[in-house]
Amino acid sequence: MSRRRYAIIGSGALGGLYGGMLARAGHEVHFLLNSDYQYVQQHGLKVESVWGDFHLPDVNAHSNAESFPACDVTILALKSTNNHLLGRLLPPTTREGGVVLCLQNGLDVERDAASVVGEDRLLGGCCFLCSNKVGPGHIRHLDQGRIVFGPWSPVLGDSDCTPHAGGNKIAGGISQGLNSISEEICNDLVSSGIDAKVTEDLAETRWRKLMWNIPFNGLSVVLNASTQEIMNSPAAVDLARQLIVEVHQGAAECGVNVPEMMIEKMIEVTRDMVPYDSSMRLDYLAKRPMEIQAIFGNPIRRATEAGFEMPSVQVIKRQLEFLQSRYL
Amino acid sequence: MSRRRYAIIGSGALGGLYGGMLARAGHEVHFLLNSDYQYVQQHGLKVESVWGDFHLPDVNAHSNAESFPACDVTILALKSTNNHLLGRLLPPTTREGGVVLCLQNGLDVERDAASVVGEDRLLGGCCFLCSNKVGPGHIRHLDQGRIVFGPWSPVLGDSDCTPHAGGNKIAGGISQGLNSISEEICNDLVSSGIDAKVTEDLAETRWRKLMWNIPFNGLSVVLNASTQEIMNSPAAVDLARQLIVEVHQGAAECGVNVPEMMIEKMIEVTRDMVPYDSSMRLDYLAKRPMEIQAIFGNPIRRATEAGFEMPSVQVIKRQLEFLQSRYL
Repeated sequence: MSRRRYAIIGSGALGGLYGGMLARAGHEVHFLLNSDYQYVQQHGLKVESVWGDFHLPDVNAHSNAESFPACDVTILALKSTNNHLLGRLLPPTTREGGVVLCLQNGLDVERDAASVVGEDRLLGGCCFLCSNKVGPGHIRHLDQGRIVFGPWSPVLGDSDCTPHAGGNKIAGGISQGLNSISEEICNDLVSSGIDAKVTEDLAETRWRKLMWNIPFNGLSVVLNASTQEIMNSPAAVDLARQLIVEVHQGAAECGVNVPEMMIEKMIEVTRDMVPYDSSMRLDYLAKRPMEIQAIFGNPIRRATEAGFEMPSVQVIKRQLEFLQSRYL
Repeated sequence: MSRRRYAIIGSGALGGLYGGMLARAGHEVHFLLNSDYQYVQQHGLKVESVWGDFHLPDVNAHSNAESFPACDVTILALKSTNNHLLGRLLPPTTREGGVVLCLQNGLDVERDAASVVGEDRLLGGCCFLCSNKVGPGHIRHLDQGRIVFGPWSPVLGDSDCTPHAGGNKIAGGISQGLNSISEEICNDLVSSGIDAKVTEDLAETRWRKLMWNIPFNGLSVVLNASTQEIMNSPAAVDLARQLIVEVHQGAAECGVNVPEMMIEKMIEVTRDMVPYDSSMRLDYLAKRPMEIQAIFGNPIRRATEAGFEMPSVQVIKRQLEFLQSRYL
């Protein structure tokens, strides 16, 4: 058992599941909770998961960052639409020299945390996960679940869209420490029963995830449809594929090569998936801000800077902005 | 007063208005009616129009094509989604040597009528019109109203997307007769109080109309919004402009040059328009078939054949197909 202390910022579908599994395995885990604080303080955390159900009657629940002990690893699992809070949330929860693992959806989402804790302390990752919070302190993990994460480098965010260059910079440069800590965190995750994997090519991982998020988060809102309804319509599947192909090309223009077979794989994996309401659709239905900037705006900006405007993705982004403007 | 006898196939927002104005001016006009037949037979036709209200207590109403006298000019004003009926509707209503004026929305919509009456008897036109049928035999014309029409030539439908070549073919070729009859019909329309104009470049007119129909019919359904709601949202206006620019480029790739200033003009004209539910939105709300093929499918096919896929337009088309598949 490592002595690493974990902070979970955002204890919902994602933070509740992974934080809960780490805590179940005996790690010291502190959870930041908002509306569920009182409930979790009294009743603990309940997780129903395809990896096995469990209940943690006593968890370290916090209603604000100030009560946190300084942690070694801060897992960022709140929506990126709340990133304006990071200046307040990260300094108390993250110890000097500790790292932030940003598991938020989208592209360039590590930047906000990096501007608070420093560029050399950031890991980023994607969760290929179907999970929902179904009640206070109650997580239901329906399908999938892998985390792929690794060192983040500001190079990934250069305006000239410089590719990751096969990870050389990371492996040989200032971020060597981030490589070792990634492996250590991965061990903690895997030994806690989580399907986790370290990547040296975070850009590829993020674009690969966008090949799912852009079509299926976007269309689930714009068409007001579950993934299953989308998959049952040939026109909607054609549209999803059109978007996936465009994101794949956008990545390539940015120097990020996702294997071409992933295009059909995204369709297949969704066809085999349990019927699922994407996080963006849940946000929309609950009239919460949607992660339009992180999932659509940032990739469009990067691809456009590289010379490819991703017009179909742009259509969906603008439709989402219109729909959100109706309630926000 | 000409002795031309007019048949109006489809006596709704469009056919009811123009047919009614021709009849009011003293022309012999026969109306094909469907659900409104009994009502119009008894109460006549009521038109509220920005050009002046009127009521025609007695009109030549028909519930089927067989009871029509053979007419000189058959105005096709029913939705193109009903074009499978033309084989039954046109032969009884159109005299030998008479012409069909196709005022349907979209591109290549004259082809269906041409396959029934022959390629050399077709005129096509676009109505820049805000009009709705608000009750049985009751038309409300809210704004705009110009008809631009002219000879149709199958050359316009060539798979190599050959442009109209400045009307030379029409002016000098077999279709000289169509030019004179266009002028004569235009005289009838104008002297009846209708804002009508003959064009020798029907392709340009149709693509210009598509620069409105594609964004505003499409978005009004997909975003479930009136033109006014669209114009009130910067994101939706950006999206409309993106589509207009793409249609403008699609036209150019097909050799059809719509003046570039029409791009902003389409935005302006819609901003100044009365709040309006497009015909496609009304079809959608009433769960009727939408004119997806005519307004989206045919232009996409033509532009794709010319080497430009109009990806944004393709997104909207597929969204419409998905939405329609939910009720049809």
